[in-house]
Amino acid sequence: MHPPLPRTGRLGLDARMTAPPAPPGLADIQAAAMALAGLAVRTPLLPCPALSARLDARVFVKAETLQRTGSFKVRGAYTLLARLPPAVRARGVVAHSSGNHAQGVADAARHFGVPAAIVMPSDAPPPKIAGTRARGAEVILYDRAQGDRLAIAEALAAERGAVLVPPFDHPDIIAGQGTAGLEVVEDLDRLGLSPDIVLVPTSGGGLLAGTCLGLGALVPEARIHPVEPEGYDDTARSLAAGRRVRLGATPPSLCDALLLPEPGALTFPVNAARAAEGLVVSEESVRRALAHAERELKLVVEPGGAVGLAALLAGRVAVSGRTVVVLLTGGNVAPALLAEILRTQTDTEPS
Amino acid sequence: MHPPLPRTGRLGLDARMTAPPAPPGLADIQAAAMALAGLAVRTPLLPCPALSARLDARVFVKAETLQRTGSFKVRGAYTLLARLPPAVRARGVVAHSSGNHAQGVADAARHFGVPAAIVMPSDAPPPKIAGTRARGAEVILYDRAQGDRLAIAEALAAERGAVLVPPFDHPDIIAGQGTAGLEVVEDLDRLGLSPDIVLVPTSGGGLLAGTCLGLGALVPEARIHPVEPEGYDDTARSLAAGRRVRLGATPPSLCDALLLPEPGALTFPVNAARAAEGLVVSEESVRRALAHAERELKLVVEPGGAVGLAALLAGRVAVSGRTVVVLLTGGNVAPALLAEILRTQTDTEPS
Repeated sequence: MHPPLPRTGRLGLDARMTAPPAPPGLADIQAAAMALAGLAVRTPLLPCPALSARLDARVFVKAETLQRTGSFKVRGAYTLLARLPPAVRARGVVAHSSGNHAQGVADAARHFGVPAAIVMPSDAPPPKIAGTRARGAEVILYDRAQGDRLAIAEALAAERGAVLVPPFDHPDIIAGQGTAGLEVVEDLDRLGLSPDIVLVPTSGGGLLAGTCLGLGALVPEARIHPVEPEGYDDTARSLAAGRRVRLGATPPSLCDALLLPEPGALTFPVNAARAAEGLVVSEESVRRALAHAERELKLVVEPGGAVGLAALLAGRVAVSGRTVVVLLTGGNVAPALLAEILRTQTDTEPS
Repeated sequence: MHPPLPRTGRLGLDARMTAPPAPPGLADIQAAAMALAGLAVRTPLLPCPALSARLDARVFVKAETLQRTGSFKVRGAYTLLARLPPAVRARGVVAHSSGNHAQGVADAARHFGVPAAIVMPSDAPPPKIAGTRARGAEVILYDRAQGDRLAIAEALAAERGAVLVPPFDHPDIIAGQGTAGLEVVEDLDRLGLSPDIVLVPTSGGGLLAGTCLGLGALVPEARIHPVEPEGYDDTARSLAAGRRVRLGATPPSLCDALLLPEPGALTFPVNAARAAEGLVVSEESVRRALAHAERELKLVVEPGGAVGLAALLAGRVAVSGRTVVVLLTGGNVAPALLAEILRTQTDTEPS
């Protein structure tokens, strides 16, 4: 049902291998969902009455902010670790991440009782570093401007004989992230609805690929849009060009979870075959989305997790008459930043 | 299944009647739950891994913050309005409330297409006043220090021939609020668990009574504690005294939703017969609870909705080894207040 883990000697997984394995199928994502029952939170699909009225649409948010560790990333991490041969898993795991994959891997490693070492940029949000450590992982900080986190993580995995858990370019990670979309389809079906438009915050493209292969297979007519912050629109550009585009210089951004310059090698072909065009949102619209989520939805959302909501609020996609699902992918925002946004975003939108 | 509505001529319901009707039974709460399906949000029961580890307990929150209008109050309001004879309901409804019952009644009235007029204190949190107006209700402000909101509401109902919707002392309101507890029992049962301890933010006692009569009937061994803020511990005192105690002078409080000086006439006998002792929390612990909810649970909670969580964080009840459910009853906090709390509550608790 799932391909054997590619391994290269003591390195465990080799994320740089030139022939990536095949992406998962629908049945594989469904199997991941069954294995996650009782481990991951079955997060709620919440109606948004104010936004629905304003946009003349049926708007729902999938609140992965309420997932274990505050983001969807545990889905992929649990799935990959659960599928490791126990003797391999026992050697421990290594990952690199700005914070959400870090916490997901740390949480999964603690569940299976194996050591985790996570390479994180030193400017990652403090709650993400603290949350990774609180889950028992060893955190190795590096300078985002200078270090190569993949190289650091690979060296660490080689040194320890541990398994490198990639953030998106692995079939088990994609299968795990795809389980969120299956829950969306199930929950809407109970209401007699089906998703017309799905907005997916996108960085490396693992959640997007899982959504395309799961939800997208179940609902062929659904339009699945990646959403990215300004300056990090590599997926939008790549989809438009029909090939992976790597960005050059990138600006600072609030959206610390979405700062990769290039789509994944395994995820991009999946997304190119199935996703709708990429949407791009401004920093200001992300701030408005955080304030909207607090005021109207009573949810704490981090900047990178709110880009889908920002796209909707900014009118980036026509939704009138449609059933729209916004994935709120993470809630790990520094309290001081949220406080600053709540203080300054004083415009009350019509509700 | 439910008692006929007491009415006094053009007054509609008379909340001051001397012989209150009987409280609802379990079957009546179950009927209310069936009628609410598809109208109210089936709010999630969320695990709290950090708090569970710290307290050596299985801690869950029932996130009524994610309910329509941001509080549990829609449950009672919909239930009462749904059971009104259509010809009576068509005359419109009147209520008095500091904000959550206000929004619940406004939302239910809009659903049934009837006019609503709500009497609110002029110092109610701005989001609650805005949220009530946004739902199409007419808002009549009064001075909390001087006005008698019940008298104002009664006069208004008489003048308009409208139905007065009481905030807690009515069997249909109690039945509606009790539906949240039934969901808790169902959701825990799926996990093979049963509630040992339930913490219920309490003011007039409608939610507490509904929880006692619903959840409390299904799980006789559950300890159901009311929780109140310092200075508004009328239920704790009344339970200890075995009779309704009315407080004298009351201090200012952050917990705008819990500022009544006396338990309800209909609710108190129910609660005296079934509830465990009342817990009382400080203003400082409420502020810590709001910050904890933001950081660890990614939920926006208002002060009055967070007193149960505050009691748990402050160690007001022994929970080791137990399954504990905290009702988070509302999330309608002014963004400026939340921002101030997030800025000042900088102590990072162990998680």
